[in-house]
Amino acid sequence: MDARLYCCVDGGASNTRVALYDDTGHRIGLTVTGPTSLTVRGTEAWDEILAALETLSRAVSLDGEYLAHTHFGIGLAGANNNSQREKFLAAAPSAGALRVSTDAYIAALGAHGGTPGAVIIVGTGSVGYRIEAAGRCRLVGGWGFPIGDEGSGAWIGRQAVDQAARILDTRYRSSVTDLHRAIIERTGHSRDELLGWLLGAPPARFADLAPVVVEFAAAGDIAALDIVGEAGREIDALADALDPGRSVPLSLVGGLAEPLRPFLPERLQRWAREPREEPISGALMLAQGRAPEETIMWQGR
Amino acid sequence: MDARLYCCVDGGASNTRVALYDDTGHRIGLTVTGPTSLTVRGTEAWDEILAALETLSRAVSLDGEYLAHTHFGIGLAGANNNSQREKFLAAAPSAGALRVSTDAYIAALGAHGGTPGAVIIVGTGSVGYRIEAAGRCRLVGGWGFPIGDEGSGAWIGRQAVDQAARILDTRYRSSVTDLHRAIIERTGHSRDELLGWLLGAPPARFADLAPVVVEFAAAGDIAALDIVGEAGREIDALADALDPGRSVPLSLVGGLAEPLRPFLPERLQRWAREPREEPISGALMLAQGRAPEETIMWQGR
Repeated sequence: MDARLYCCVDGGASNTRVALYDDTGHRIGLTVTGPTSLTVRGTEAWDEILAALETLSRAVSLDGEYLAHTHFGIGLAGANNNSQREKFLAAAPSAGALRVSTDAYIAALGAHGGTPGAVIIVGTGSVGYRIEAAGRCRLVGGWGFPIGDEGSGAWIGRQAVDQAARILDTRYRSSVTDLHRAIIERTGHSRDELLGWLLGAPPARFADLAPVVVEFAAAGDIAALDIVGEAGREIDALADALDPGRSVPLSLVGGLAEPLRPFLPERLQRWAREPREEPISGALMLAQGRAPEETIMWQGR
Repeated sequence: MDARLYCCVDGGASNTRVALYDDTGHRIGLTVTGPTSLTVRGTEAWDEILAALETLSRAVSLDGEYLAHTHFGIGLAGANNNSQREKFLAAAPSAGALRVSTDAYIAALGAHGGTPGAVIIVGTGSVGYRIEAAGRCRLVGGWGFPIGDEGSGAWIGRQAVDQAARILDTRYRSSVTDLHRAIIERTGHSRDELLGWLLGAPPARFADLAPVVVEFAAAGDIAALDIVGEAGREIDALADALDPGRSVPLSLVGGLAEPLRPFLPERLQRWAREPREEPISGALMLAQGRAPEETIMWQGR
């Protein structure tokens, strides 16, 4: 088989979607694998991607030379860091073609079909991204844990654990709610258990708690409502910085976008619209050369 | 030389003071070395301690067998975690005697001569500690970066870097002050430089910026004043949880205690008093067996 293949990757800090398409754009298969955020995994992200591709290729009995025919379109969290992206490119296998961008760029391509528009990714981390014209982009947030990622899963989980810790050491007793009891159930009832949970905890471990917070917020828990309300205001601030005049369409993507929607400020709910397609479709545009390489307009000071 | 020696250690996340005393309690020497926080260094903390002891012993021409005569009194950040403390004890060299406690315990012993009293350590991290009666203690805070350490150097530095990042990505332009320009000078003017600075940054890297914030607060910078004011309220909350009735004496210790003093809430300034002696003197009490082993009263829920 000599026809071109497209391997499309949407990689985050908690998991990665890898899809394989044939040369007509028909999806051969899709698999979900571990994190490929460059900040979390570095060049080891390749192991994850190539293992997934191997699995997908086996399912359709491709020949052993498939890499030479494969055109990669890869969007990864952490690819906005030049040095991380260059190391990843240097570790690439020999393939048909390779295009690498941020996960935010492929999400924006997918959400707006390559036309000007903005996205905010709310997953383990958070970042705001706007395509201003073909290939010219604006990036807000995305600084990563622990300073940034406002409104993200890791950020929401950290607020909840912070409060749980204060309860365990007596600083927060008057405000204990069911949310806190549920968090302590997961992180440990004693100082030693919680310290063990915290030791070297990656952002994804905090993000694992975000669905718990959202669930309790939906049930009216006052502490949970406070946290998701604050997350909504942070996401609104990202949106504001992306497009103060609200002149382009905006979509929220990522695993927490839908669960958080009821808790976003009303003006943001009114502005946000469903993405046209998933980020992986943006990765296909990239792989097929239908999208220009990403050129981020770095904000001057 | 067969007489007993006392090796006293006050170990934090940024640096460590190691002092050697003879059997009459006379200080032979003191040296400052790298971090020995168990959370940061684990059992490698021993390398730091033993190298410092070797230096101190050479300065006074002790014989090669000095370890057998050495009684250790060691207070370390992170020793409140049972599993970390046990690993450290298991890696100990054969010595005359060995007593290990938290850095907070030796600070409280030093500050109040072993009598009931409270301390708050404000260094790279923060923790509140109270000796209620001989050997019975209460611990508040001390959860470590990134959830806790409120009011500490790492916490102060993180607030400043957080604001700088928001300025670089346009979210915070209206509130730029000289503090932010000074922080950006140190962390980098571009997204890539700041991302590089942030990548794997240990708490101490954030804490390095705290003196800059304090300096600008002293000069009236409004953003800096906001940050140190909030730090002061967090430290006051630790004090409140330690001793709601303000019934025992309280001392603030650690590298940021003195610089932050002018920015603490007034009622905390009135309550706080100078420590009687330094933490290293508390470590000597421990080494000499003049203090009971630390028994922390874990707060029930």
